[in-house]
Amino acid sequence: MRVLVIHGPNLNLLGERDPAIYGTATLDEINAMIEKTASELGMRVDCVQHSDEGSIIDALHGARTVCDAIIINPGAFAHYSYAIADAIASISIPVVEVHLSNLASREEFRRRSVTAGSCRGSVCGFGAHSYLLALRAVAQTPVK
Amino acid sequence: MRVLVIHGPNLNLLGERDPAIYGTATLDEINAMIEKTASELGMRVDCVQHSDEGSIIDALHGARTVCDAIIINPGAFAHYSYAIADAIASISIPVVEVHLSNLASREEFRRRSVTAGSCRGSVCGFGAHSYLLALRAVAQTPVK
Amino acid sequence: MRVLVIHGPNLNLLGERDPAIYGTATLDEINAMIEKTASELGMRVDCVQHSDEGSIIDALHGARTVCDAIIINPGAFAHYSYAIADAIASISIPVVEVHLSNLASREEFRRRSVTAGSCRGSVCGFGAHSYLLALRAVAQTPVK
Amino acid sequence: MRVLVIHGPNLNLLGERDPAIYGTATLDEINAMIEKTASELGMRVDCVQHSDEGSIIDALHGARTVCDAIIINPGAFAHYSYAIADAIASISIPVVEVHLSNLASREEFRRRSVTAGSCRGSVCGFGAHSYLLALRAVAQTPVK
Amino acid sequence: MRVLVIHGPNLNLLGERDPAIYGTATLDEINAMIEKTASELGMRVDCVQHSDEGSIIDALHGARTVCDAIIINPGAFAHYSYAIADAIASISIPVVEVHLSNLASREEFRRRSVTAGSCRGSVCGFGAHSYLLALRAVAQTPVK
Amino acid sequence: MRVLVIHGPNLNLLGERDPAIYGTATLDEINAMIEKTASELGMRVDCVQHSDEGSIIDALHGARTVCDAIIINPGAFAHYSYAIADAIASISIPVVEVHLSNLASREEFRRRSVTAGSCRGSVCGFGAHSYLLALRAVAQTPVK
Amino acid sequence: MRVLVIHGPNLNLLGERDPAIYGTATLDEINAMIEKTASELGMRVDCVQHSDEGSIIDALHGARTVCDAIIINPGAFAHYSYAIADAIASISIPVVEVHLSNLASREEFRRRSVTAGSCRGSVCGFGAHSYLLALRAVAQTPVK
Amino acid sequence: MRVLVIHGPNLNLLGERDPAIYGTATLDEINAMIEKTASELGMRVDCVQHSDEGSIIDALHGARTVCDAIIINPGAFAHYSYAIADAIASISIPVVEVHLSNLASREEFRRRSVTAGSCRGSVCGFGAHSYLLALRAVAQTPVK
Amino acid sequence: MRVLVIHGPNLNLLGERDPAIYGTATLDEINAMIEKTASELGMRVDCVQHSDEGSIIDALHGARTVCDAIIINPGAFAHYSYAIADAIASISIPVVEVHLSNLASREEFRRRSVTAGSCRGSVCGFGAHSYLLALRAVAQTPVK
Amino acid sequence: MRVLVIHGPNLNLLGERDPAIYGTATLDEINAMIEKTASELGMRVDCVQHSDEGSIIDALHGARTVCDAIIINPGAFAHYSYAIADAIASISIPVVEVHLSNLASREEFRRRSVTAGSCRGSVCGFGAHSYLLALRAVAQTPVK
Amino acid sequence: MRVLVIHGPNLNLLGERDPAIYGTATLDEINAMIEKTASELGMRVDCVQHSDEGSIIDALHGARTVCDAIIINPGAFAHYSYAIADAIASISIPVVEVHLSNLASREEFRRRSVTAGSCRGSVCGFGAHSYLLALRAVAQTPVK
Amino acid sequence: MRVLVIHGPNLNLLGERDPAIYGTATLDEINAMIEKTASELGMRVDCVQHSDEGSIIDALHGARTVCDAIIINPGAFAHYSYAIADAIASISIPVVEVHLSNLASREEFRRRSVTAGSCRGSVCGFGAHSYLLALRAVAQTPVK
Repeated sequence: MRVLVIHGPNLNLLGERDPAIYGTATLDEINAMIEKTASELGMRVDCVQHSDEGSIIDALHGARTVCDAIIINPGAFAHYSYAIADAIASISIPVVEVHLSNLASREEFRRRSVTAGSCRGSVCGFGAHSYLLALRAVAQTPVK
Repeated sequence: MRVLVIHGPNLNLLGERDPAIYGTATLDEINAMIEKTASELGMRVDCVQHSDEGSIIDALHGARTVCDAIIINPGAFAHYSYAIADAIASISIPVVEVHLSNLASREEFRRRSVTAGSCRGSVCGFGAHSYLLALRAVAQTPVK
Repeated sequence: MRVLVIHGPNLNLLGERDPAIYGTATLDEINAMIEKTASELGMRVDCVQHSDEGSIIDALHGARTVCDAIIINPGAFAHYSYAIADAIASISIPVVEVHLSNLASREEFRRRSVTAGSCRGSVCGFGAHSYLLALRAVAQTPVK
Repeated sequence: MRVLVIHGPNLNLLGERDPAIYGTATLDEINAMIEKTASELGMRVDCVQHSDEGSIIDALHGARTVCDAIIINPGAFAHYSYAIADAIASISIPVVEVHLSNLASREEFRRRSVTAGSCRGSVCGFGAHSYLLALRAVAQTPVK
Repeated sequence: MRVLVIHGPNLNLLGERDPAIYGTATLDEINAMIEKTASELGMRVDCVQHSDEGSIIDALHGARTVCDAIIINPGAFAHYSYAIADAIASISIPVVEVHLSNLASREEFRRRSVTAGSCRGSVCGFGAHSYLLALRAVAQTPVK
Repeated sequence: MRVLVIHGPNLNLLGERDPAIYGTATLDEINAMIEKTASELGMRVDCVQHSDEGSIIDALHGARTVCDAIIINPGAFAHYSYAIADAIASISIPVVEVHLSNLASREEFRRRSVTAGSCRGSVCGFGAHSYLLALRAVAQTPVK
Repeated sequence: MRVLVIHGPNLNLLGERDPAIYGTATLDEINAMIEKTASELGMRVDCVQHSDEGSIIDALHGARTVCDAIIINPGAFAHYSYAIADAIASISIPVVEVHLSNLASREEFRRRSVTAGSCRGSVCGFGAHSYLLALRAVAQTPVK
Repeated sequence: MRVLVIHGPNLNLLGERDPAIYGTATLDEINAMIEKTASELGMRVDCVQHSDEGSIIDALHGARTVCDAIIINPGAFAHYSYAIADAIASISIPVVEVHLSNLASREEFRRRSVTAGSCRGSVCGFGAHSYLLALRAVAQTPVK
Repeated sequence: MRVLVIHGPNLNLLGERDPAIYGTATLDEINAMIEKTASELGMRVDCVQHSDEGSIIDALHGARTVCDAIIINPGAFAHYSYAIADAIASISIPVVEVHLSNLASREEFRRRSVTAGSCRGSVCGFGAHSYLLALRAVAQTPVK
Repeated sequence: MRVLVIHGPNLNLLGERDPAIYGTATLDEINAMIEKTASELGMRVDCVQHSDEGSIIDALHGARTVCDAIIINPGAFAHYSYAIADAIASISIPVVEVHLSNLASREEFRRRSVTAGSCRGSVCGFGAHSYLLALRAVAQTPVK
Repeated sequence: MRVLVIHGPNLNLLGERDPAIYGTATLDEINAMIEKTASELGMRVDCVQHSDEGSIIDALHGARTVCDAIIINPGAFAHYSYAIADAIASISIPVVEVHLSNLASREEFRRRSVTAGSCRGSVCGFGAHSYLLALRAVAQTPVK
Repeated sequence: MRVLVIHGPNLNLLGERDPAIYGTATLDEINAMIEKTASELGMRVDCVQHSDEGSIIDALHGARTVCDAIIINPGAFAHYSYAIADAIASISIPVVEVHLSNLASREEFRRRSVTAGSCRGSVCGFGAHSYLLALRAVAQTPVK
């Protein structure tokens, strides 16, 4: 099973930004955790980080024929990017949305994800561990 | 580690209600899956189902001194029960919210959970598997 | 044909509360009228009154295999109980919503029923007679 | 007792339009059912169909001195015609609103009737049978 | 100076409908008052009453070349008829909106007039006298 | 008959401010017109201008025992001063609201007057002439 | 192919009303252009103009068995007439909505069409040319 | 004078939950303070705590014939329980709403009480002392 | 202990205005009751009434160094005066908001107080007695 | 005449994504149709596809001096990209908005285009044919 | 160049109120800074502080003929005083709005200024330095 | 002190686009003014322009370790780019938002900046001079 992990804007600053909310692990450290769990689950995983919608859309499109599932943390794009929501809806492999923090307990605008509705499911609020749970989730999500 | 799993209203009809949305497993079958995973993770788990706010609030209160974590699927109470949200906020052990279906792709009123903001995190959209992921989540969630 | 009639919260005070709006008949008198009409229509009818969501949900669930139809006056729960709405949606026998008063001419919050959308139809505004019309309605409503 | 039944816009296409929602009976067939039930109840009934507000308002005004009650299915006018709502409020004989489908389970804009607040009560969701129940309702509704 | 007075829907029932709000004068009596004042002001006045938008729009259009001003009481159409608002905006002679009651102290939906924005001004709340004040108003309103 | 005319904030700059909207007459010129018409109608009139709510409230209170009616142009206070609305509601002599411009065709926030609901009626959109029409209106408005 | 073109309220004043927005062509001139293009496309076209909902609904109903497509410019009815929306939805031949002006750049209330959702598509903003494009559109729109 | 004090959901955890907001006194300590003040005022007082709407509604109904007044802290039910609001409205003895914290300075959803409108008055923000002030309030509130 | 009582706009007309809502006591009579209770509680009290925001803000500022607490009935300013809210927030002595009527059961706009959030607590709905309860409240409210 | 056609995000997947909504033609096939029609109309056309706002903005800017018109299908950017709306407003050649599907009959968020207001007009709902109609539209749209 | 600086309500307490938000400088110290910078820029400056709308409106009016520009910190009046907004709009010399704190990061109601729309521009969030920047701004703002 | 100035989308067309709103200076001319003022203030300044969120986010991230402050004119991104807002919040050097025009007096959607809340302050409405004032502002803004 091959899985693409897409990190959205500002996640490249992890460890530096608001550690009370986002934790102290850097993105490299999180990617290492993801790779370790993926390997335990017998998955092949690629991790990318993009700050613009276009690259995220291209990554989603590109993975549709070479991967079996996608895990995406769209960052703030979750709250307004209907273009990414459409890109997720355009492809048939399962996509799972992940957030480090518990969006439901943050600012009003973060309580709604416009991209989550195009995904199979979501995991929120467990810090870096959210990605690892998502890996386990896709391991058992059948293609629609 | 001891965990309480609370199933909210209408979950007792699982397997019978809208299988396209909620799957075909009965609550007993889901509880068996939960117990099996818990046992693999070295956890002790109790599963209860309640159809009224009062009993759910009592269950939350009661568990606060005897359990290490709570997993709750509040069903439709997620969308309006500030009393349950307060009960979750009143206790200090971690609580994780679970939904079988991906709320973000359902009716408008289901896209907002008033209880999720009092939890540590949430897992949505993976059917019965959502509970199993939540067990893994609490296994690694530190007490606040 | 067997029909369950569920009276929601505060209906036990009928005859005492706001007679200008709700009429002077007590719940016992209304139940007698319901039984008389049911018997004329060749129906067997049971009437219950509950003040909490849990009991109403249990009554709806319990009736799904032993009754042919349900008539419910959810009282104020009509305006916010998505849990009761889900319970109605969970069962396949027809459910008809009844209100004594004409909700459309009362306070703003009463003009919307969140439970009615899960029912087959509704009868509002004819006092105790609303129940009798609902009995006739279910007599001719086919199971979905 | 003399009753006027007013069918609003598009009801002349009944049997042809969206049979899954509105049923297969034509307006003539429904009028025949109405007349049959009225005659059983000892009522004299007239049925009219109008596609414009002005004619419906004139029909309401005209009936106020010659009929004992009015049954109206305002069709889509229910959702915005304050002029018809005012016409209903202007006359003192009882008016009952009827809808074939269960408005509460349809599109958002259909969930609110601005005309229902000027009526005595409403019957919704029982197809052509809604009219027959309304006949029984007016049979027992006292003039305000 | 020639003026057209347009009475909207339900105004034909004046004297009969809700006298506490609309007064006890009939439309004929009001028209007589209007004619008397017009004649004092040296105006020629025609009074019409219509219950449908189409006829009101036709009346507005028709008057644009033969009258010097129009006084309109759009009744409930004031609250939603953008078609009448457009008709008023389409013609260049001054139009004044009149209401018998003080809309600002009535139901929420009556506090906003969508037609008033296309008029030169409005007079509200003085019963039949509102029309007489409007006559005086148009007497001094220059064509734009 | 004795009438108080209250001009609200910024009306002292009339003739100078936005002549396209408010006309070119100064407040003194308008007051002279008001006095001339009042005298024709056999009324005694006093005109005051205030820029703060407190003084307007005091003027309203003060007039309640010595005047027979009040004409008020609350200026922008019309859109938010519930304190002035309450002051108008506190006194029993008739109060008429006047605006120079047609509020219904201006910015969104000007389309709603919170003070008008406490008045007997309103006259809008006829420039300085609005005051003269209001004088005629109060001449015929009975004390409630 | 036979096509009905329906012009809604106020379009009869074209050429006279707000030429900056609606252009200088009269309705007769536009109809001539429509007929010329229709004839080039081998279509038979009838053009009607109505100022009231009832007549537009009747025209839509009437055309459903004798025409192959309908082009409608509902004028301001586009913004509130659910009755016309229902009429369009009631018939199975394709209906295309046309507006002379670009609604998206006009007043807020004009930015939403409640009738467009029942049509196959829409053409907006090209003046009289919008109708000609719509003719070409229906020429290639298959019946649903 | 006999008074019932009803504590709503989560108040049983007082002293434990968010002491910065709710204070450090336990419910037993607060009940002791209430009893002491009641006895000083010559009142007989009963204190109950319930976590579900049904029991609170039953307590309100039950007290209506045996008590002279009720003091209720509905907890989070204040923000959505129209069923409790109706129960308060159903009984004729005075009911006073109490909150420990100053709702007006907390989360948005806590700034509105749907139950307070059915009460005689409210006391908010003085911690346990709010109950004591409410006792004094009912001591002087006449039965409606 | 020294307490300032501030009465907002229109309270000077107490006894005269809407006695069904505000009671029959005049402001002087209420001030006498306040002084009597204050003296029983060993407090020194000053009562002022102001109709404008500026004077109320000055009174709040002035009291901050010479009083121990303030009781304020902001009247209608409660619903929109963020300037008074800021003035209350600017000073550190406790401020308690008082209303004669139960705002929660009055017009929609009165159900929200923008000033209450800057106060320690509030007492509403007990007529003149609300002030006396507030005196007792401040007697026991510690300085923040 | 030279025209630029800009396809927004996800349109590169045409033929693959939701064929029931977007049709079965691929973007290459649509571009061929566009080129064929353009050539018939004597136009020179260039077609580009971009998934990010920046590239679309650059394309709009770049074309402003070398093209005579632009046709844009902004995809989901239509619903939130004020930056693209500004880019369209920044250039003086005519821009026409095109959508394959009838936005008015799709999800709520798709019913509003923030970019359409900066365009000359729009064509929606005719599948690939929408582009061809837009070509004809620009052929006759004068530069502002 | 002569400039008037108007400080709105509560700014007289600067240095005392919420120093984390508003800084520790007193109003006298800020005025000294303003005078120093003004003198460096060759301007003559007058600083006034008012707590009521009337005085602020009078100051704005008064300055219109004797000053070249006005700098105003309307305090909380920024969020609701349409009367001050109108006063600013009534005068032709440039007015610049200043706030000490960054309104965009504070409570919801502070994020919108109704007065800023009548000004030339605004400077927010730089503490006392905001005034000094505004002085430089007016130095280069041409009269409209 | 080193400062980065980021110009958002469409600012590259300055001088060409809507000169009445944005002025006649080109971006090069504005950059020259910025450099001149920066050099007078002893600052080193770099100016970049980007049309896409990704590049702006990268520029913000990149500057966080090499600059002392950032001045950003996010253009239309100010109104919806939560990703840029998060990028600003992610870095600790002060960021100041600048707009050429006075957003408060423009279209509704421009009156709210979602990015300004993450900045230290803002300067709006002074054309190119806004940037120069921002330079002076950052010169005196301490790092948080």
